Amino acid sequence: MNIDKELIKCVEKIDLNLEKRLNENYKYINEILDSIKYSVFTGGKRIRPILAMKSYELFSENNNYDNIMPFALAIEMIHTYSLIHDDLPSMDNDDYRRGKLSNHKVYGEALAILSGDGLLNLAFETIFDSFKDLGDLEDHRRKILTGKEISRYSGLKGMIGGQVIDMNQDKKEIEDDELLYMYKTKTAALIKAATVSGAIIGGANKEEIETMRKFGYYLGMSYQIKDDILDKSEDENIEKLTYLSHFGVKKSDRDLKVFSDKAKLELRKLKGKDINFLMSLTDILINREV
Amino acid sequence: MNIDKELIKCVEKIDLNLEKRLNENYKYINEILDSIKYSVFTGGKRIRPILAMKSYELFSENNNYDNIMPFALAIEMIHTYSLIHDDLPSMDNDDYRRGKLSNHKVYGEALAILSGDGLLNLAFETIFDSFKDLGDLEDHRRKILTGKEISRYSGLKGMIGGQVIDMNQDKKEIEDDELLYMYKTKTAALIKAATVSGAIIGGANKEEIETMRKFGYYLGMSYQIKDDILDKSEDENIEKLTYLSHFGVKKSDRDLKVFSDKAKLELRKLKGKDINFLMSLTDILINREV
Repeated sequence: MNIDKELIKCVEKIDLNLEKRLNENYKYINEILDSIKYSVFTGGKRIRPILAMKSYELFSENNNYDNIMPFALAIEMIHTYSLIHDDLPSMDNDDYRRGKLSNHKVYGEALAILSGDGLLNLAFETIFDSFKDLGDLEDHRRKILTGKEISRYSGLKGMIGGQVIDMNQDKKEIEDDELLYMYKTKTAALIKAATVSGAIIGGANKEEIETMRKFGYYLGMSYQIKDDILDKSEDENIEKLTYLSHFGVKKSDRDLKVFSDKAKLELRKLKGKDINFLMSLTDILINREV
Repeated sequence: MNIDKELIKCVEKIDLNLEKRLNENYKYINEILDSIKYSVFTGGKRIRPILAMKSYELFSENNNYDNIMPFALAIEMIHTYSLIHDDLPSMDNDDYRRGKLSNHKVYGEALAILSGDGLLNLAFETIFDSFKDLGDLEDHRRKILTGKEISRYSGLKGMIGGQVIDMNQDKKEIEDDELLYMYKTKTAALIKAATVSGAIIGGANKEEIETMRKFGYYLGMSYQIKDDILDKSEDENIEKLTYLSHFGVKKSDRDLKVFSDKAKLELRKLKGKDINFLMSLTDILINREV
């Protein structure tokens, strides 16, 4: 398996489906659709939907991604809306995102807020639209469970909660517990949502689902710590509260390794499954230079 | 039936359930919960959840509201989030809402944005949490359909779309068609979501659901026109594009009556159903003075 080729193939599939969803027949609202597309197609790595697809593939008996796609898209939409809102002047006040102007710098604050709202809403519309066959109880069961997981991980007990803590605690001292909770919710929650969604829709059993939940958690933690380390080298003057600023370089470097090792340990528990792709992806993510 | 007593009874039930949902065990995020509660409990009339409950009651064989409550709450949460975001400085820039300071005047813009996001997300969490009994296909079918209806009516093809048009078209001339579409989406969509949700969860048949959809549409249109008429008398200087400013007083007064008559006509199609409450509520809403 050539992992780079495989990643490109996944991204193409995701982008194609996002385009399809955003090019439906909407009335009178071209400007907000432009704004949404601007942020959705601004060079994201699509880590979360890829994780959902590849977690699905571990357990599913078929090789097409149609079943997981609505959930993969929903998670990417939620991720994108959170970036648009985070960048707003009253939040992080970022003028740039991925080297391009942030949404509100191009479309204005009002449309940026509404674009975020629209994307969050569209995520759940997409999930509900996935219920096509109204006759299969097991199909329902999996989709309902997945909707539950995603909505919890994106909400006040998940990503939004983490964002609130992040915003409030800027430059303030907090306890280790709260910082860990912030990392668990702010970043790891949506990554867990991806790995768990893939497992459930793919037909994993309870134990396997919990393994994928832990894998997502450990991967999410190491992903965010790596992010902090990269950000820090980028701008020495940032005074934001991070894992790095709180625990120091040494512990951050060590925990990056601890968390990613634990992530891989979870994958290895899945006997008889082809975990190669997810193992390699974990390595790529924690060794990335941008 | 004493309608005032009945309305109070409904509001108490709604508030009790909203409190229950917002007093769950959340970690480290008391401030955003305060902010959310501030806006949720700021004297709203609870029209939408009441419509959901009473539409449910028309069709349901039992008299308790437990089945419809998650959907009624979800719609009220969506309504509340939309008010918080609408009031923001970059949107309508309103310092007051229902005679109290608007959310961002009390909690700041960042928390107001996140509170809105949190409420929208919580609406869908609440819907997914309603799937308790995983064994009943008909129960699933109704809840899935209702989730689909609510998510569509609150999204880009519904309320958010209407809000975008409203924001863009301020003080500008637009075609009749677009103005009607804006009214249909901005206000009538969520009211339709309420009446349709009640019908579906209550077990209405297809024809009855479509009748309740039309009832919601006509009621929503007349409700918003009445709102414009009341707003106009309140502040003669407002230059916002409304039904009133676009079509003039005479046609607005006439259409208020036309739409509300049509709403009542729809209700009368429901043979053998006790439509008294919804008939009276329609009259109360279009004759209200505040």
